[in-house]
Amino acid sequence: MKKVENPPKEAWLALTKRPQFEQEELTKLVQFILNDVKRNKDKAIFKYTEKFDKVALQELFVSTSEIDTAMTSVSESLKQAINIAKANIEKFHASQNSVEAVIETTEGVSCWRKNVGIDKVGLYIPGGSAPLFSTILMLGIPAKLAGCKEIILCTPPNKEGNIHPAILYAANLVGITKIFKVGGAQAIAAMAYGTETIPQVYKIFGPGNQFVTKAKELIQQDGTAIDMPAGPSEVLVIADTSGIPSFIASDLLSQAEHGADSQVILVSNDAAILEQSLSEVQKQLEVLPRKEIAQKALENSKAILLRSVEECFEFSNQYAPEHLIIASENASDYAALVQNAGSVFLGNYSCESAGDYASGTNHTLPTNGYAKNHSGVSLESFQKKITFQKLTKQGLQNIGPAIEIMAEAEELQAHKNAVTIRLNSLKNV
Amino acid sequence: MKKVENPPKEAWLALTKRPQFEQEELTKLVQFILNDVKRNKDKAIFKYTEKFDKVALQELFVSTSEIDTAMTSVSESLKQAINIAKANIEKFHASQNSVEAVIETTEGVSCWRKNVGIDKVGLYIPGGSAPLFSTILMLGIPAKLAGCKEIILCTPPNKEGNIHPAILYAANLVGITKIFKVGGAQAIAAMAYGTETIPQVYKIFGPGNQFVTKAKELIQQDGTAIDMPAGPSEVLVIADTSGIPSFIASDLLSQAEHGADSQVILVSNDAAILEQSLSEVQKQLEVLPRKEIAQKALENSKAILLRSVEECFEFSNQYAPEHLIIASENASDYAALVQNAGSVFLGNYSCESAGDYASGTNHTLPTNGYAKNHSGVSLESFQKKITFQKLTKQGLQNIGPAIEIMAEAEELQAHKNAVTIRLNSLKNV
Repeated sequence: MKKVENPPKEAWLALTKRPQFEQEELTKLVQFILNDVKRNKDKAIFKYTEKFDKVALQELFVSTSEIDTAMTSVSESLKQAINIAKANIEKFHASQNSVEAVIETTEGVSCWRKNVGIDKVGLYIPGGSAPLFSTILMLGIPAKLAGCKEIILCTPPNKEGNIHPAILYAANLVGITKIFKVGGAQAIAAMAYGTETIPQVYKIFGPGNQFVTKAKELIQQDGTAIDMPAGPSEVLVIADTSGIPSFIASDLLSQAEHGADSQVILVSNDAAILEQSLSEVQKQLEVLPRKEIAQKALENSKAILLRSVEECFEFSNQYAPEHLIIASENASDYAALVQNAGSVFLGNYSCESAGDYASGTNHTLPTNGYAKNHSGVSLESFQKKITFQKLTKQGLQNIGPAIEIMAEAEELQAHKNAVTIRLNSLKNV
Repeated sequence: MKKVENPPKEAWLALTKRPQFEQEELTKLVQFILNDVKRNKDKAIFKYTEKFDKVALQELFVSTSEIDTAMTSVSESLKQAINIAKANIEKFHASQNSVEAVIETTEGVSCWRKNVGIDKVGLYIPGGSAPLFSTILMLGIPAKLAGCKEIILCTPPNKEGNIHPAILYAANLVGITKIFKVGGAQAIAAMAYGTETIPQVYKIFGPGNQFVTKAKELIQQDGTAIDMPAGPSEVLVIADTSGIPSFIASDLLSQAEHGADSQVILVSNDAAILEQSLSEVQKQLEVLPRKEIAQKALENSKAILLRSVEECFEFSNQYAPEHLIIASENASDYAALVQNAGSVFLGNYSCESAGDYASGTNHTLPTNGYAKNHSGVSLESFQKKITFQKLTKQGLQNIGPAIEIMAEAEELQAHKNAVTIRLNSLKNV
């Protein structure tokens, strides 16, 4: 980690910048795949699965017997752990469901909003060596709670054409049964445009590599919504004198092991804590199975000494981290200083992995500075809020004249007429 | 309007399609303007304002004396009308502010969310012959209520270099004082990248022509958020036997007068109501100042006879209209059938123009079928929801083992370590 001591504020902007990648070639390639799937549907899906996932599938749809087999091959201890996480995630996301009051803005004029689940949603779960079943909980549980009628899941098969049993277990547990063996940009295209086998959805959720991310960005132009724009995962730890260096180091490393492009930042007003955390990082790094990946991420990471805790928060708000850990016994007092962050972990015992898996908060969060203008995934991400209004005759008589004057001033005569014709009919009664 | 009688369901998809436009040339032109403003800042702004708005400005910033002059030149009756609208919009949007409970998902594990206003937001108000001051209320009021610290407004000057007094009055009324004389794609670029005069913002709101819409679409790739994707404005009216043809016609026309590309659809299960509404449209059209525009919009519009009210709602949900008027005495009973719509107007006295101006609901709504996966602008559009969590020692002991098992199964050892190191420290106490 690069150590920076008391950088002047003019230098902060550079310190908060994320690396930028040239994307022209990527865009072209992904757009080609999208167009191909739009035109050739399942045929294109089978072709790209053979090309990228190295398996010639007969079927895209995961069968009931495959799910049944998975149920028996997941260990009891993992099942129990997943059940604990599910209960907490369910409890927190269910609490986000609001029934709003009807507001009478003027006598006879009632306005309200209703939350309605988005009809059809698609979840994407990346492949790779490890099964990222936790993301199924984070997306599937709120989708179910929101009342989405059709929830489908796409995830790439391994070379034997199978999906990891933990993925199937988690999906089945949250009630998702339409699972398709397809990954990458082709999976996003399939959900955006629909194929003979895979239904079209209105909104797509979930993480992925650069191809998936680019595909999600591009399909928005064709009317499909996405959860949020994405970038590499990141953590910023603010530590004061009451932070615990070994804990801090473990949190920095749990972010660093995600990928070589992970962003890891430690800011502190205490030089000793900073120093000790850095040597703890070196110590703990040695025994990690994903040491090489973590090491690469740490090369781009920064440990920054600042003058005060307040300055630490000022820096953090400018950075707008996906995850913000406040490593301090006074974390709760500092919480009010947070202006830009995806999810905040208060105190020495609130490690990021708690929120990644089981505390109940969602782990699909805005990266890349998007915490300045985006929220993480929540129940509302799977809903629309529809506004309703009802005017009685009296209500229209109360606000109608104001509408007539405003419409006239905006030179929209037909807008005015819609009121006038109604008010006149009431005069004649 | 094109009349369609009892179309088979296979034909519905075509009937719900919006016209598509080729955008390649537009994209190139707008991208050029964006890049130019990003590089040359104010200099580029002055250049494009001279080119497109035909005025060589000395200053972009609207001065206090210009605002003061506007205050006195708006009629008292318009001021009063705007004040009535403001009160209703404020009342409804203030009711959207929620303080959420802290949820203890497991003993010692507390999770909650906090609404925080987006620091810096930019509002865009189009120019043209008429001053669209109503949109300032719809965007400025929730921005203020949300606690956004910096709210700026961009709107193009007329050929004399002035902004219409009604715009300045409405802006001043809602507390917006940073107003800049700039329109088109160059205004969006200025707010996305910042110039010497115009501050950079994190999210941009507001309607506009195709250049503005394209610019908003493109600047998202550089990290600026926008309110929602946009298309031409639209209304769908569902009328049953208790609908009133002259009212229905006035609503169809108030949508049609917006622009030649406006989408206007009437569906009914009553052939007589449909027929009478169509002749009322012809009658009312004759006296409209914007007759030519409305007529063009009506050429692309449809009046569809269906077999039942339920079928009307099925069609409407597939179309997903921006505005849905339920022209029926039983509108409230039907409200539950609405699955996809931006804003719904219940009953014969709830005309769309009520919601456009003064009932209290927002008029910035999803068009182009986006009501399937987007909500209209609300207080939340100007906020982020930040999640917080706090685990006590006991809390970590309660869920820690589950996290360890899940992290191990996802092969993320450092995630597990962050828990283990803390649990071990507690064993040693």
